Amino acid sequence: MTVRIGIIGTGAIGRDHARRIKQVLAGGRIVALTDVNRSLARAVRADIAPDAAIYATGEELIAAGDVDAVLVTSWGATHEQYVLASIAAGKPCFCEKPLATTAEGAKRIVEAETAFGRRLVQVGFMRRYDAGYVALKEAIARHTGAPILVHAAHRNPSVPEAYVTPMAIHDTLIHEIDVLRWLLDDDYVSARVHYPRNAARAHAKLRDPQVVVLETRKGVLIDVEIFVNCHYGYDIQCEIVGEDGIARLPEPMAIEMRLGAKLQNAILTDWKDRFVVAYDVELQDFLKAAAGGTAAGPSSWDGYVAAITSDACVAAQESAGAAVAITMPDKPSLYS
Amino acid sequence: MTVRIGIIGTGAIGRDHARRIKQVLAGGRIVALTDVNRSLARAVRADIAPDAAIYATGEELIAAGDVDAVLVTSWGATHEQYVLASIAAGKPCFCEKPLATTAEGAKRIVEAETAFGRRLVQVGFMRRYDAGYVALKEAIARHTGAPILVHAAHRNPSVPEAYVTPMAIHDTLIHEIDVLRWLLDDDYVSARVHYPRNAARAHAKLRDPQVVVLETRKGVLIDVEIFVNCHYGYDIQCEIVGEDGIARLPEPMAIEMRLGAKLQNAILTDWKDRFVVAYDVELQDFLKAAAGGTAAGPSSWDGYVAAITSDACVAAQESAGAAVAITMPDKPSLYS
Amino acid sequence: MTVRIGIIGTGAIGRDHARRIKQVLAGGRIVALTDVNRSLARAVRADIAPDAAIYATGEELIAAGDVDAVLVTSWGATHEQYVLASIAAGKPCFCEKPLATTAEGAKRIVEAETAFGRRLVQVGFMRRYDAGYVALKEAIARHTGAPILVHAAHRNPSVPEAYVTPMAIHDTLIHEIDVLRWLLDDDYVSARVHYPRNAARAHAKLRDPQVVVLETRKGVLIDVEIFVNCHYGYDIQCEIVGEDGIARLPEPMAIEMRLGAKLQNAILTDWKDRFVVAYDVELQDFLKAAAGGTAAGPSSWDGYVAAITSDACVAAQESAGAAVAITMPDKPSLYS
Amino acid sequence: MTVRIGIIGTGAIGRDHARRIKQVLAGGRIVALTDVNRSLARAVRADIAPDAAIYATGEELIAAGDVDAVLVTSWGATHEQYVLASIAAGKPCFCEKPLATTAEGAKRIVEAETAFGRRLVQVGFMRRYDAGYVALKEAIARHTGAPILVHAAHRNPSVPEAYVTPMAIHDTLIHEIDVLRWLLDDDYVSARVHYPRNAARAHAKLRDPQVVVLETRKGVLIDVEIFVNCHYGYDIQCEIVGEDGIARLPEPMAIEMRLGAKLQNAILTDWKDRFVVAYDVELQDFLKAAAGGTAAGPSSWDGYVAAITSDACVAAQESAGAAVAITMPDKPSLYS
Repeated sequence: MTVRIGIIGTGAIGRDHARRIKQVLAGGRIVALTDVNRSLARAVRADIAPDAAIYATGEELIAAGDVDAVLVTSWGATHEQYVLASIAAGKPCFCEKPLATTAEGAKRIVEAETAFGRRLVQVGFMRRYDAGYVALKEAIARHTGAPILVHAAHRNPSVPEAYVTPMAIHDTLIHEIDVLRWLLDDDYVSARVHYPRNAARAHAKLRDPQVVVLETRKGVLIDVEIFVNCHYGYDIQCEIVGEDGIARLPEPMAIEMRLGAKLQNAILTDWKDRFVVAYDVELQDFLKAAAGGTAAGPSSWDGYVAAITSDACVAAQESAGAAVAITMPDKPSLYS
Repeated sequence: MTVRIGIIGTGAIGRDHARRIKQVLAGGRIVALTDVNRSLARAVRADIAPDAAIYATGEELIAAGDVDAVLVTSWGATHEQYVLASIAAGKPCFCEKPLATTAEGAKRIVEAETAFGRRLVQVGFMRRYDAGYVALKEAIARHTGAPILVHAAHRNPSVPEAYVTPMAIHDTLIHEIDVLRWLLDDDYVSARVHYPRNAARAHAKLRDPQVVVLETRKGVLIDVEIFVNCHYGYDIQCEIVGEDGIARLPEPMAIEMRLGAKLQNAILTDWKDRFVVAYDVELQDFLKAAAGGTAAGPSSWDGYVAAITSDACVAAQESAGAAVAITMPDKPSLYS
Repeated sequence: MTVRIGIIGTGAIGRDHARRIKQVLAGGRIVALTDVNRSLARAVRADIAPDAAIYATGEELIAAGDVDAVLVTSWGATHEQYVLASIAAGKPCFCEKPLATTAEGAKRIVEAETAFGRRLVQVGFMRRYDAGYVALKEAIARHTGAPILVHAAHRNPSVPEAYVTPMAIHDTLIHEIDVLRWLLDDDYVSARVHYPRNAARAHAKLRDPQVVVLETRKGVLIDVEIFVNCHYGYDIQCEIVGEDGIARLPEPMAIEMRLGAKLQNAILTDWKDRFVVAYDVELQDFLKAAAGGTAAGPSSWDGYVAAITSDACVAAQESAGAAVAITMPDKPSLYS
Repeated sequence: MTVRIGIIGTGAIGRDHARRIKQVLAGGRIVALTDVNRSLARAVRADIAPDAAIYATGEELIAAGDVDAVLVTSWGATHEQYVLASIAAGKPCFCEKPLATTAEGAKRIVEAETAFGRRLVQVGFMRRYDAGYVALKEAIARHTGAPILVHAAHRNPSVPEAYVTPMAIHDTLIHEIDVLRWLLDDDYVSARVHYPRNAARAHAKLRDPQVVVLETRKGVLIDVEIFVNCHYGYDIQCEIVGEDGIARLPEPMAIEMRLGAKLQNAILTDWKDRFVVAYDVELQDFLKAAAGGTAAGPSSWDGYVAAITSDACVAAQESAGAAVAITMPDKPSLYS
């Protein structure tokens, strides 16, 4: 069965998912588009999906009879309403980060989906689909023994002046928050933030770098370095220390060269290149589940928990190294 | 446009391509199947392609009006006839290795395609689609300067007794023969084979390992170690020595672990795992070109040249280290 | 000039230094030995230094007219008295860790040496002489820009039951305490300790692993994982994050092998093998300075500061994640 | 016992060995110096060995009563005469490469030493003392199974115009010729040379790069790439393919850095840095054996065999890829 897809929001990421469905993935067809900027929707129709209808609003698109499933790739502040509308219509819905702009909003989605009684929402935490993280999870299961410590780093060459300290959590750490929960099959109980001196390239309203220390229910201690003006490259590191040994996230594939007195491998500089294949895999997973009228992968619950954790981490940024407790609500059985 | 595919030969590789078209790739639909063992075709229909028609012969399948393009994944000895029939029908055709069992057979295909006047045939040399080789080719173009030497190795954990010395060329080296021509954008002019003592695990009718030395028109000297009972793993190595530096084919992604006093990365042991993603990419490339009524990627000419080179290498196996000249016919303009 | 050496304490480490002076290093000759267990001193004389005199006490050895310089390799509790006696005699003195068993004792040595007015004491912090750390220090100076973060790990396969939590500082972290100060050319201002759950192999009186977080005067934030029952090997890691990039301590030399489906390098399991060459270099440095009647390398001041820092870290172990301030006295000009 | 050393030839290498004996190694003292350029000998005396006597000729130095052992570090053409004189005097003698300028000359030394009846000569093949090669030899013995193939490379950033094709053997490959025999515990039976096109940086009288293929008595097939204008660095590679797996010579220690979008390790550019520690170890080995009136390590026989092999390789350079047989004389029992 081919899943007929409607896309709400046809900016860069929406257009890229449209291309993916058209040219890379099996089982999907784009039948509907909408964007507050109608010319963007028209351009995607012209370039990628000539048979797609263009709708005035996301709600109309969701209601359209030939739309089987929905991609929410609009501006973040609108995600909640479209996801709730998709749930109300009983249609599978892939929602880019953030699921909602507040934990309360995410909670409303969880409640709606729980009331509906079947999973319909997949959140765009693409790292769970990265071959490196998948292999790391397998290495934990098969080789390292139970995790005790995690050392991670999220480094980015530079950010604009508008990027302020809390964004290091909401826009950057959010990926580690989700993927480490998934890797460890665990939940967070506290967060701390330690700051070294500022890097010379830090901005007026940005503490950079910073180290977030998370503790989990199972007692794992995690440190994540966030360094968004690290200059040298986009570099994601993750090391798991287990009872019997250690496993590391692989470096991205690179040609080893011997040139100019250096044994060298290129490091990526653009975050968009780092998990490019994972975007394909996550959306293929959505299409597959949507064909059966449901959703898989990162859930509304995961989005909600990530929001709660982010809020605690931001509070920890202002707590001078003291631990901020993270309290999780009870998990509805739909997500277990 | 969705390309309607007919598959001739639904054994392991045909079935796997069917799965790929159904579940992984964009733009293809399986509408026709055939196999000398009809139960195999029925099984693929049942499991993967419920709407496909089953034909008695490859020729009937090729002739079917709703078949836009053909996959030839039957027994090697039958490839030539089906490829020729596809060309006669003007239908794009993806043919697994070998294109034909003899250089003469491959030549007939080249002549038919040339007479037809448009590329219709893609040969299943999947390594050209491997991300590692693609990156290596780019590293040559951008970094190493013009190649002068190539050091390569093709190692396999073990082969059955039926694998005899010439198969080290026809079944094993054939991949390096094609991919190195493509990497270097060059052609071979001579081949030699040097033998060390036999490995203890070599069989009665197998010299193993062996080193094939190829020279190219541009003067590049290539050595390829073939070691098909190397025991430790399936391991493909390729190092390019250029005017300014050296580039190496990346190792397959693996989790670096610290366990039991070893810093260790797993090495693959099954060849099927090594280029598994490349199979997806090559067939996607076929679907894309077939949608336009033509073929791209490795051509009939490449298949023909690989056959000529293989024959020379087998002659070199029996020439006690002396060079065997490789003479290429003129390349038809269709392939330039 | 050949330096005439007296060794106080001829157990394992004293004997090993004797061998070094005799067989590996230039410029030294062993002329005097003493040990509370006289048979040990006799054995070293028999095996390594046949011309050496044996003295009843360390004080007599220090006073001997033909002893130019002293090695204090006796039981830790006796170090202070012998170092003070060497200073009193104006003789260069190499003292194994600890310089004294308390910060107060180390302070007395600093005061004595300062009063004497010339450096006479080298403390056995051998990591400063390790080629890897030396190269790392150079990489910081030349390449990474000013350090901002340090991620380090000190892992050991196993420790006996007698090894209790504070020993993770006094016996294990002590090496990082010294070498990181030297690497960064900086001093500590606070210490924290974070604990994950205990490893299954931790003992009743041992929290293992633990993470010590140190802040420096220049604002560098350091995390050191201490994991003394890590099982897989003896593994020392150190990564410096600077303004412009990152530098890592090299792995010890190991043969890369491809065996049994693993690309593998051996990891050491015995700490004695890790810095074996550094012991040679540190003692050669002592001999060279002693030939001039003075001492170089890690000083009494470094030993004193390490003791103050260790005490703070032990306090931090009992402070539930809160920071413990580290206050350094003013540094005498002798050590600047 | 301290060995009293006389040095014949106090140019760069002689001076460096003098420094080594004075400052780095145990058990030696320089008592005598000579050089055709007397001012060089005086300079070494002034800087390093103030008590050394200066002799007019190497023969007088060898005859001096207080000289226990001799270092021959003069111009290559004079080595044979001094080594023969040392043997005649019954004094251990360390001779830098070449032992003699011809195989005949080396043979005369072997005959003289054999007639004397005790080993007195160590040839300066320092690679046998490199920790990497020593570990590689151990890996072969313990892990890889019996060797079948060797892939090696000897790359140098650039050579002057005066470096002509045969020097690629006599000055460059000579190191692999010795160290591979030692690694494999084997002897050569034939040599071939294959040339790719010349590198753009090759000179008028230099074929560069070239690949030498050696076969051994045990049936091991060796290929050595020699590329003396490789531009990017001084780079020595050696990979052993054995029955059960593969072992590689380690890269020299280097700090792994992440800088400027590159994960990078420095490659050496000056050959003098590559085996700098091995020079220390080889000379310490000489001092140790000389203290007992004999010599160890690479022998006159090894020097003779290297000369025979070099001559065959030079002949192979002119034989268009054909194999040149290498016939070894019977090994005197002194060297077994």
